[in-house]
Amino acid sequence: MFRKLMTLEEARKAIANQFKPALLADEIAVLLEAYNRVLAEDAVSTLDIPPFNRSTMDGYAVKSEDTFGADENQPAKLKVVGAVAAGEQPTLVLRKGEAVEIVTGAPIPEGADAVVMIEDTEREDDDLQVFVTVAANENVMKLGADVKKGDVIFKKGQVLGSSEVGVLAAMGLTSVKVLRIPMVAVLSTGGEVTEPGKPLPPGKIYDINSYSLSTAVVECGGKPVYFGVVPDDKAALHKAMVTALASADMVITSGGVSVGPRDYTPQIVDSLGKPGIVVCGIAVKPGKPTTIGFVGEKPVFSLPGNPTSALLIFYLLARPIILQLAGRPLAQMKIVKAVAGAKMFSAKGRRTFVMVKLMFDDSCRLIAQPVETGAAGAITTLAKADGFVEIPENEQFVDTNQEVAVALFRSVLGKP
Amino acid sequence: MFRKLMTLEEARKAIANQFKPALLADEIAVLLEAYNRVLAEDAVSTLDIPPFNRSTMDGYAVKSEDTFGADENQPAKLKVVGAVAAGEQPTLVLRKGEAVEIVTGAPIPEGADAVVMIEDTEREDDDLQVFVTVAANENVMKLGADVKKGDVIFKKGQVLGSSEVGVLAAMGLTSVKVLRIPMVAVLSTGGEVTEPGKPLPPGKIYDINSYSLSTAVVECGGKPVYFGVVPDDKAALHKAMVTALASADMVITSGGVSVGPRDYTPQIVDSLGKPGIVVCGIAVKPGKPTTIGFVGEKPVFSLPGNPTSALLIFYLLARPIILQLAGRPLAQMKIVKAVAGAKMFSAKGRRTFVMVKLMFDDSCRLIAQPVETGAAGAITTLAKADGFVEIPENEQFVDTNQEVAVALFRSVLGKP
Repeated sequence: MFRKLMTLEEARKAIANQFKPALLADEIAVLLEAYNRVLAEDAVSTLDIPPFNRSTMDGYAVKSEDTFGADENQPAKLKVVGAVAAGEQPTLVLRKGEAVEIVTGAPIPEGADAVVMIEDTEREDDDLQVFVTVAANENVMKLGADVKKGDVIFKKGQVLGSSEVGVLAAMGLTSVKVLRIPMVAVLSTGGEVTEPGKPLPPGKIYDINSYSLSTAVVECGGKPVYFGVVPDDKAALHKAMVTALASADMVITSGGVSVGPRDYTPQIVDSLGKPGIVVCGIAVKPGKPTTIGFVGEKPVFSLPGNPTSALLIFYLLARPIILQLAGRPLAQMKIVKAVAGAKMFSAKGRRTFVMVKLMFDDSCRLIAQPVETGAAGAITTLAKADGFVEIPENEQFVDTNQEVAVALFRSVLGKP
Repeated sequence: MFRKLMTLEEARKAIANQFKPALLADEIAVLLEAYNRVLAEDAVSTLDIPPFNRSTMDGYAVKSEDTFGADENQPAKLKVVGAVAAGEQPTLVLRKGEAVEIVTGAPIPEGADAVVMIEDTEREDDDLQVFVTVAANENVMKLGADVKKGDVIFKKGQVLGSSEVGVLAAMGLTSVKVLRIPMVAVLSTGGEVTEPGKPLPPGKIYDINSYSLSTAVVECGGKPVYFGVVPDDKAALHKAMVTALASADMVITSGGVSVGPRDYTPQIVDSLGKPGIVVCGIAVKPGKPTTIGFVGEKPVFSLPGNPTSALLIFYLLARPIILQLAGRPLAQMKIVKAVAGAKMFSAKGRRTFVMVKLMFDDSCRLIAQPVETGAAGAITTLAKADGFVEIPENEQFVDTNQEVAVALFRSVLGKP
């Protein structure tokens, strides 16, 4: 079953051709628990905000015309006829020559059209002197000035942070319609891996990928469905894949896709439904033995067994799909400029990704230091690398001290 | 009760003098749910990794000395005596002149000390020709080469992302000791606010701050305890504050701290325990009516009622405290350089924070456009602002087109 290796761009195109980011169903989230959720519909205000003409200062509500011409030398003289506290609905109606004590946030009484700041007045009993002229609506926030009933406050697709949750609360909402979180089945294959928590038989190692990939799914807004290690036999893998497809919106496997007799995953994907495998091997290093398919509309990513390779391909190809399933903006990976701390070689004819750790040298240059990876399959590479440097197919190496762009796995300076 | 306004730096110092970031108790987290948690102790490996000498290539395990001098023209000739699959413990012992077929990840059989890549061999039945010389340990990852039993893998305080969770899984762990998440009681005061979900009486507005601040607590790694709106009377507020202090590690209130008869919060904090109020008013705009105290070791932040002011002071002063309680690194706010899109004025003698929205102009300059705020108390300011520009006390304004540093509330370009 030979198929030519695709370039990374060809693989991206093959995925895009099949992937229809059909929006997931809605669900209701309690607003206090809605942090980082995605709005499933436009949020439309059911209220005018503020819901009344509102004082923006502590002072006195007045008829602005009563203050015309007033200044330090010629104060306007008014009679204080009452007071309005915040949260109180004033019942009195202001007449010419009258003023009402008012605090920030309180409703302007009928008859008044402006507020004089307390600093611009002097009061003795009920006699008030006003030392400034105020215009109509001065220090008044009019009903609906911030938000009008029927205004679209947030568009469908808005991700909710503290400000957005605050604004939705201002509408009196306690719950909100959000997109369901995409479920991503994560399973490992390969006879050499054992699930953490079980005794480690001789010759085996613990499964890393189910854990690192499940966590990476959470990081980009998905919900992992942990399947653990599937025994390296065709019937077991077939059964697990059927269950995974039935219980999730997307499947990610790792291991078991080297060329060899145990290469079941692509066969099973092809057998389960159209269009089947659309990417079979990518001209990248690491990550060559990656296959990607679709069973109906559900994407199935089969990543390499090497933990660093699996996570790299996840970032490059699977993460954008999960973000789209979740209805989230396709946030680019953050890029920082640095200086190569050592010569980095590329693999002939393959896009090469060199894992690097960032550090400052004595002259405060940001250095991208390659961390050992690849063949050695060192699992701690995972935790040591801050990001990667990409070397194009047509370049043989990046020289020491050359400027490089480092794509960050996470925000590094001031983690997390 | 007049106390002089502090500068922002004085307020920070007054907080630092009282705050002892006593670490919270530990708890056990299931590793698959440990994303973004903080390690409560050093993670020490209980295993050598790899746990055996491991092939890093598909090929043949050999005695390296059997290949000495071999090349394209003079292949070494060996006899294939078996095969080792990944996950299998080889039982045979390799003798001189013998080779064993091996795959990546499989244990090196006894007697062998190197692996020849399959590409460098030719096989006919059990006769193998080797066209290269391999050195001892070539293509072999030695037992413990990645991690030695007893090595400290991560230090206490490490925040767990996908890589770290993967490495902990490699140790066979399924759970991990993490710091408890700090509980932060959030309550609103002020007669003018009503809880979302209830009918809105005339003259009142919905409470925003309990929602925006609760969500901001989640954003920086805390767990909010929602108290909602506390009636604007001293006994009710006293009772709520006692309950809040008993049920949380920190308390955040908002509203009710203007000068006036309803200024109960600082009095109550002072009455509940030493040292009481340590910051009473800050020379910043917005955010002046902020008070901060400690009851025993528990910080109590009383933020202004204006939603934008409350959230700003939260970011400037409360967030660092929550991060420290959580045992997290004090991540700085992200700063981007932009160009002022309009003249921004400062408040006399006060550090001024101007909320801005970022946008690109036609010449692709990043523009910091002020959004209306402050007096108007517009609640949508919250959602419109991407960050703020800080104007020092001794400067009167920032001019249009002047370069400014914008501190971001969140990652803006490619939210969230």
